[in-house]
Amino acid sequence: MERGRTLSTPALRAAVERLAPPMDTVAAYHFGWIDAQGNPADADSGKAVRPALALLSAEAAGVPAEVGIPGAVAVELVHNFSLLHDDLMDGDEQRRHRDTVWKVHGPAQAILVGDALFALANEVLLELGTVDAGRATRRLTTASRKLIDGQAQDISYEHRERVSVEECLEMEGNKTGALLACAISIGAVLGGADDRKADKLEEYGYHLGLAFQAVDDLLGIWGDPESTGKQTWSDLRQRKKSLPVVAALAAGGPASEELARLLAEDAKSSDFENFSEAEFAHRAALIEQAGGRRWTEDEARRQHAVAVRALDEVDVPQRVREALVALADFVVVRKK
Amino acid sequence: MERGRTLSTPALRAAVERLAPPMDTVAAYHFGWIDAQGNPADADSGKAVRPALALLSAEAAGVPAEVGIPGAVAVELVHNFSLLHDDLMDGDEQRRHRDTVWKVHGPAQAILVGDALFALANEVLLELGTVDAGRATRRLTTASRKLIDGQAQDISYEHRERVSVEECLEMEGNKTGALLACAISIGAVLGGADDRKADKLEEYGYHLGLAFQAVDDLLGIWGDPESTGKQTWSDLRQRKKSLPVVAALAAGGPASEELARLLAEDAKSSDFENFSEAEFAHRAALIEQAGGRRWTEDEARRQHAVAVRALDEVDVPQRVREALVALADFVVVRKK
Repeated sequence: MERGRTLSTPALRAAVERLAPPMDTVAAYHFGWIDAQGNPADADSGKAVRPALALLSAEAAGVPAEVGIPGAVAVELVHNFSLLHDDLMDGDEQRRHRDTVWKVHGPAQAILVGDALFALANEVLLELGTVDAGRATRRLTTASRKLIDGQAQDISYEHRERVSVEECLEMEGNKTGALLACAISIGAVLGGADDRKADKLEEYGYHLGLAFQAVDDLLGIWGDPESTGKQTWSDLRQRKKSLPVVAALAAGGPASEELARLLAEDAKSSDFENFSEAEFAHRAALIEQAGGRRWTEDEARRQHAVAVRALDEVDVPQRVREALVALADFVVVRKK
Repeated sequence: MERGRTLSTPALRAAVERLAPPMDTVAAYHFGWIDAQGNPADADSGKAVRPALALLSAEAAGVPAEVGIPGAVAVELVHNFSLLHDDLMDGDEQRRHRDTVWKVHGPAQAILVGDALFALANEVLLELGTVDAGRATRRLTTASRKLIDGQAQDISYEHRERVSVEECLEMEGNKTGALLACAISIGAVLGGADDRKADKLEEYGYHLGLAFQAVDDLLGIWGDPESTGKQTWSDLRQRKKSLPVVAALAAGGPASEELARLLAEDAKSSDFENFSEAEFAHRAALIEQAGGRRWTEDEARRQHAVAVRALDEVDVPQRVREALVALADFVVVRKK
């Protein structure tokens, strides 16, 4: 993953520097390259899973990792476009241990810079001017649309009393699976891989994304704020119908019913924002007792297995295969 | 223009129907196809200048207007993406005589549906799968980036005491010229026109955009709210440094100096939002006395002339040329 960052960051920075002021500064803050006062910083700029995948993707097609760099930059730009907008829509005040862009620079800049990163992503690919770049952009556009669909579902689910496990998985496939799928196919497409190979790689990426998101949902409730950079019980505070919650609600039994009763009350509560740590801890304990935590841990492993199996059906160099398996392993055991 | 709407609206509606709920409904409200309660409506959906241009653009390349339809849909989607986001950033509560999307459906839906329309624009073009579609998407991406740059400049200028006429023209070229330039080249590109021809058509579109925006700036101060669907003195209420304002400030003389003094006070005023009609009317009168209104009227005519001259350098069918000149004429005399 370190290689993904090292190889793609200079190109990412060069792309971001194209933005007109003050958007370049706002974006640099978001990526952790400067602090809120504009001084150089070296803050956590995210896990860079997507750039790493895009470079491996090129190698999966038998071309040098460097061929995947524009793809790595494009998917990272789309990912960060969605973070900027989602943080604002969700009212999230912290990301990667720092205040979010809308908190520091205001909502208008969060909207605007998100838009600019999204446009830049397409620009970086299309200016390659090749037929394969057009194919790559089309896949990126499809993934972006799913990303937006997923955010729409996520928001609407927060206002619904019941969300099925299937709906939740569909939402998470859109929100996380689609862009990871694009990341692991985009470098190959830029390297001339045919659609069949790209589709198989996407299958790996999609299920990797679902494994990733299952772990994210666990961290969103039981994660250590020191590691995740988010508030305690972050997803509960936002009434997120994440996998552990929907699985617990679907499980039945006393803890499940008590949880359903409490969440229905919470939805109507005007005092929800002032709930104590203990009140969130109680809800988390009910989710665990109802089996939502265990189910989600199992689900992460199931998706991990499906992702790894997809690799068996596609001809990729052994070294790349091993790296992709290692990445899937990492995604499942990560603590942040 | 009526033909532009008639030919492109079914394709636009089909594209919007692809959006996942509730984004399809929110977008349909924005386009005036349904009311806030979800009932069918036939509200003003805008002037449809861009679709009309995109169809003429195809004919300019000697292919049927229908070839330009995906381009017409794409530019209209990008235009409306920017309206959704700009209305939210600017806090505009009314557009086309109706409450704006963020007022009716909330800020999150305005962000989300804007994002979706932007992504959809690229999708509609790229799914054509041709090399020319890739070229068209690249031009649309360039235009979208300029659109976003222009909005960034517009926002930053509102917080600055002085903005030069040149800065204002650059901002308006980005905000309005770039997408109109894309509209008048995109159909031709889809029809196989070479880059030279597309660039010349863009020159017409860019200056048409500057003429359009000069008139918009006049309507933003002196427009009839019944016609424009905006509040009285709309741009003054928003402290917009539009052309009449910057030209008046640059003119010098007593009215110009008095205007500068007042606007500097306004910028610090905490009571600005409660200003009376008479206070805005006084500022408008000063702008007029300082020559800002006249200068902007002249500028609209200058840009009109440059736009029409650009057509002399490009080989387009006589009927198309006449339509483009008529469109430029309309832009300059319009009342809304």
